[in-house]
Amino acid sequence: MSALLDGVYEGVMTYGELARHGDFGLGTFNDLDGEMVALDGCFYQLLADGSARRADPAQQTPFAAVVFFRPETTRRLRAPASQSEILSLLDEIAPSRNLFYAIRLDGRFKSVTTRTVPRQVKPYKPFTEIARTQPTFHFNDCTGSIVGLRSPEFAQGISVAGCHLHFITEDRSGGGHVLEFISSDVTLTVDHYSAMHLELSETAAFLDADLHKVDQDAVMKAVEG
Amino acid sequence: MSALLDGVYEGVMTYGELARHGDFGLGTFNDLDGEMVALDGCFYQLLADGSARRADPAQQTPFAAVVFFRPETTRRLRAPASQSEILSLLDEIAPSRNLFYAIRLDGRFKSVTTRTVPRQVKPYKPFTEIARTQPTFHFNDCTGSIVGLRSPEFAQGISVAGCHLHFITEDRSGGGHVLEFISSDVTLTVDHYSAMHLELSETAAFLDADLHKVDQDAVMKAVEG
Repeated sequence: MSALLDGVYEGVMTYGELARHGDFGLGTFNDLDGEMVALDGCFYQLLADGSARRADPAQQTPFAAVVFFRPETTRRLRAPASQSEILSLLDEIAPSRNLFYAIRLDGRFKSVTTRTVPRQVKPYKPFTEIARTQPTFHFNDCTGSIVGLRSPEFAQGISVAGCHLHFITEDRSGGGHVLEFISSDVTLTVDHYSAMHLELSETAAFLDADLHKVDQDAVMKAVEG
Repeated sequence: MSALLDGVYEGVMTYGELARHGDFGLGTFNDLDGEMVALDGCFYQLLADGSARRADPAQQTPFAAVVFFRPETTRRLRAPASQSEILSLLDEIAPSRNLFYAIRLDGRFKSVTTRTVPRQVKPYKPFTEIARTQPTFHFNDCTGSIVGLRSPEFAQGISVAGCHLHFITEDRSGGGHVLEFISSDVTLTVDHYSAMHLELSETAAFLDADLHKVDQDAVMKAVEG
């Protein structure tokens, strides 16, 4: 994640290979060509026009985080709930701040506001600059899924500390990085993880990146924005 | 590493299980009962009296970092060299700050100053307090091995960012955490790693630890001291 913030937008991991590490998660594509959301073993590319398509196994990613999702705790939330209410409930279900958690919300949403990164061309602009000008989308009274990962503070820089959420509609036609949402009737499922495997890309851009200068707190601001 | 600094001195990983993850590395034991050094598949416990013994596969660790060491670059250093000279040479051999490196020095040393953590009893004292009162040892004109790992800045909190070195004598009778050394005639071997696997202990002490308050820079000071 530090490298992505430093402008390293090309990795060598293909989606075909990533699928061997998990069936659920989120990330992006080389050249920051949209947001990625994975669920039930299907990987989707959420493009800058708000549309979605299946990712090709040959596509590569500079950053992705995936898990094998095994529903551990399930809660039906029939009453409308804001993002902060659901994150508070998650703090009860997943009280330790020191493990990794996968979160899934399926059902009806009153509104979901998303952002999607547009494909970049070289010379690449810094991530924080791109984040300021990303298109946003509003999905109202829709059905779909939110895929999320919650990472511990000590994983900041490798992952995104705290909650990182992506949305996709039930018909898999659109979605993006979640900025804000209100659920109307959803099922929340949560799973926890005490192990993490990190794969770095040995590209010249990655090897030479000056990650010392990356402000870790800017990760949250730029990504969670 | 953040948890260790926060006083979590008990893990559930046994040395028997750790050996399946690597044959080379360093760490400590439950209750901080000495320093660990591993080389050639043998795991040693460096005790607070400066002595060493083989670790038992049933012993457990709250923190250890191991790799399968495959010598990639080898340099014979026949002239005396200080620790800072050898670390500068390492920067040439291993120029990227964004990968993990394993470092091994075998041969004769003019001097090696080590520190060894003494076994703790509950209620545990903070690591930074223990570090201030650890016994130090001086090995002069001796033969032995230094085992080291160099981790990227973004792994601070999980690992120890920068170089972390442990020493053991050739006869495996003594050693400790390296504070300072001068080599006289040694062979330096280096290997690089672009993947990392993290295993967390799901103990109550770890799950409840408040790692937000751990000052990451204190890691370097307390551990590299």
